[in-house]
Amino acid sequence: MRKNYANKCVFLTLTDYFRITGRMTQKLHRQQQVFINDVSVDCVMFGFHDYQLKVLLLKWPGANAWSLPRGPVRRTEVIMDAAVGMLHTTTGLDDVFVQQFQTFSRPSDRWTETSKNEFSATANPHLAASLIAVGFYALVDFERVRPRVQGTFQWSEIADLPDLLFDHHDLIESALLALRKDLRYLPIAKLLPSKFTLREMQKLYETILNRAFDRRNFHKLLMSYDFLTKLPEKKTGSQNKSPHLYTIDFDKYESALQDGISY
Amino acid sequence: MRKNYANKCVFLTLTDYFRITGRMTQKLHRQQQVFINDVSVDCVMFGFHDYQLKVLLLKWPGANAWSLPRGPVRRTEVIMDAAVGMLHTTTGLDDVFVQQFQTFSRPSDRWTETSKNEFSATANPHLAASLIAVGFYALVDFERVRPRVQGTFQWSEIADLPDLLFDHHDLIESALLALRKDLRYLPIAKLLPSKFTLREMQKLYETILNRAFDRRNFHKLLMSYDFLTKLPEKKTGSQNKSPHLYTIDFDKYESALQDGISY
Repeated sequence: MRKNYANKCVFLTLTDYFRITGRMTQKLHRQQQVFINDVSVDCVMFGFHDYQLKVLLLKWPGANAWSLPRGPVRRTEVIMDAAVGMLHTTTGLDDVFVQQFQTFSRPSDRWTETSKNEFSATANPHLAASLIAVGFYALVDFERVRPRVQGTFQWSEIADLPDLLFDHHDLIESALLALRKDLRYLPIAKLLPSKFTLREMQKLYETILNRAFDRRNFHKLLMSYDFLTKLPEKKTGSQNKSPHLYTIDFDKYESALQDGISY
Repeated sequence: MRKNYANKCVFLTLTDYFRITGRMTQKLHRQQQVFINDVSVDCVMFGFHDYQLKVLLLKWPGANAWSLPRGPVRRTEVIMDAAVGMLHTTTGLDDVFVQQFQTFSRPSDRWTETSKNEFSATANPHLAASLIAVGFYALVDFERVRPRVQGTFQWSEIADLPDLLFDHHDLIESALLALRKDLRYLPIAKLLPSKFTLREMQKLYETILNRAFDRRNFHKLLMSYDFLTKLPEKKTGSQNKSPHLYTIDFDKYESALQDGISY
């Protein structure tokens, strides 16, 4: 076949020539040079509010369903940096506890028609479907989050999630399992506001572990560590008598976590 | 600029034209259609032999250094299948315990000259450098491994590894940490031959955890679970008196692992 072409010519205007090769080069360039093609970081951001464990969801401009915050990975950066950067732009925070927990794959032949149609066409890298999602979870102080990206945000209770894009339901479920497994070594107090009641801390453990603790025993346990400081202030506006507020000494907390906090 | 090209022409033989566009198309095709570009599965295969925890290393034909077994991921497969398939071709086994533990990144600007030179040119997908490595570890019965791929193999003691390609030293270290963390839920008896002595099992735990157990207490602990079956046979060729051989009831073992085996 090749041989037959040898003596034949093609006349192209330079415009055409550059259009054809340029488009290909662009595609190669786009794929190769800036981002790692087919890979994204997807993040389950846990927050705690009203005695409920919640997850931050967003709806990108142009999308018609909710999803977890996610972003591309540059070829020149470490995955963790991509996750931290994405968290920063999403929440406005830069002192967030982030943990890689599992990597998910979405084989191309299993994509649903929805995600195919919705995402293959768009130029927004946050919306592009990816074959590989490196899953991170983050512990976020609910009250301090100030999103810095365009889109609609909501905190959703884990027990009551809306329909999500991609495999983001699986991601949330796996993140919760990982959180439970790692609980004794995790700084989950980062989910609490800077001043909190012991009841709030107990509720946090109970919510994550999905079980109840005896109040007295749990408080005794907490106070057996020295990282909690009782404040003179009391919480106002509670239904019952005003409980004391506590704060955490993060240096002592970190060293207690080294050995693991039992509950 | 574009405007000036409009009236100018380029004369290409069809051969040239196809050579130029074809090469680009091929490159796009190779990148997009079969494998997920820039992603590999890299596997730390643990084996236990001579009271030592060992790792399977291989030297691919054409490579001049050792590395962990690794392979590409097809765009149509789940990562776990890629890992299991690679394990199967590497060891000849298909009932291996495999666990994803962490995903590593190797930003393109941090590649060492060695790995760049060695791997960018080759067509062997096992040798191609990848920006993202999804790390798995596997528990492998040392005695049953029969490699099915070309290359040189060796079991290397963890304390005495040779120089390795890529970030494979980091991978092994992280895999060992993950193994320790998950120990109580892991079927690590899969590292033992089908018949083993209690001393071998104790040594296995000691090696992984890098600490010593009291023999009597450890044996008492093991026998408190009902998954071990004492065989009439004894191990011959031991230095001391011949110890009894044991075998494992994997159904009972699996259910004991659900709750975690404490040590």
